[in-house]
Amino acid sequence: MPEIRPATLEDMTALLTLMRAYYAFDHLEFNAERAERALHTMLHEARGAAWLLCDGGTPLGYAVVVWSYSLEYGGLEAVLDELYLEPAARGAGCGSRLTEHVAQACKDCGAVVLRLETEPDNESARVFYRRLGFEPLERVLMKRELTGAQGSSG
Amino acid sequence: MPEIRPATLEDMTALLTLMRAYYAFDHLEFNAERAERALHTMLHEARGAAWLLCDGGTPLGYAVVVWSYSLEYGGLEAVLDELYLEPAARGAGCGSRLTEHVAQACKDCGAVVLRLETEPDNESARVFYRRLGFEPLERVLMKRELTGAQGSSG
Repeated sequence: MPEIRPATLEDMTALLTLMRAYYAFDHLEFNAERAERALHTMLHEARGAAWLLCDGGTPLGYAVVVWSYSLEYGGLEAVLDELYLEPAARGAGCGSRLTEHVAQACKDCGAVVLRLETEPDNESARVFYRRLGFEPLERVLMKRELTGAQGSSG
Repeated sequence: MPEIRPATLEDMTALLTLMRAYYAFDHLEFNAERAERALHTMLHEARGAAWLLCDGGTPLGYAVVVWSYSLEYGGLEAVLDELYLEPAARGAGCGSRLTEHVAQACKDCGAVVLRLETEPDNESARVFYRRLGFEPLERVLMKRELTGAQGSSG
């Protein structure tokens, strides 16, 4: 049975390979250079944590959590930023095991809530997470990027 | 014209008074003890930042940002967790000024994206934020609370 272990900076290559596959699966743009820099910073500064699902040394999946904070829930918030399994690893309960492992690790770190986002058309992801005790949150998200000139007129 | 300044632990009373009004306005449950503890921890551990809008020493509004991290955007993420103006302070551009002030402060802290959530029925909030350069994000949120027994079976 595949094992789950925390990922470190030494696992960057495995993580980035899986990340590229995940972004393709979720139809998100993948910028390899930016992803590597962001992942490195995240692990190096402990702004989040990552886990690998491996079978005999072969990486089959990964999960990434980033730390946030919630006034509404009154404490540390964990955000399941990314979770992905290679097609070969699906359907055998590995996704549930990985999610439960991550939830327990977040709880052990003192997190009071674990949140995630799904793509609107990914109903199967919502069925999967609902079975694991996640509830839909009726909120509408908005974002403003701060990297351009727009944010400089404060 | 009301001034905007960073809030500190010495502003707890003003922040909590405004928070209580905000939660009532947004139909959210307000637990005073939990809110005070969460706000104190957030400020004390620098897991976020808060600002007050004051007119001659009278608090008229506040904003709270919590820090997170985004692999997708490749860096520090700011989440505008709460923003509220007393009815008397609305309609005079104070909300826009407060939001722009917060966005600039987040950018100065190195954040690459500023995100927020709105209640589904609060279309006027979305019109307000859209005018300030925020775009809706088509994602469906889910959450699992980790404080009960459920998360302990990992």
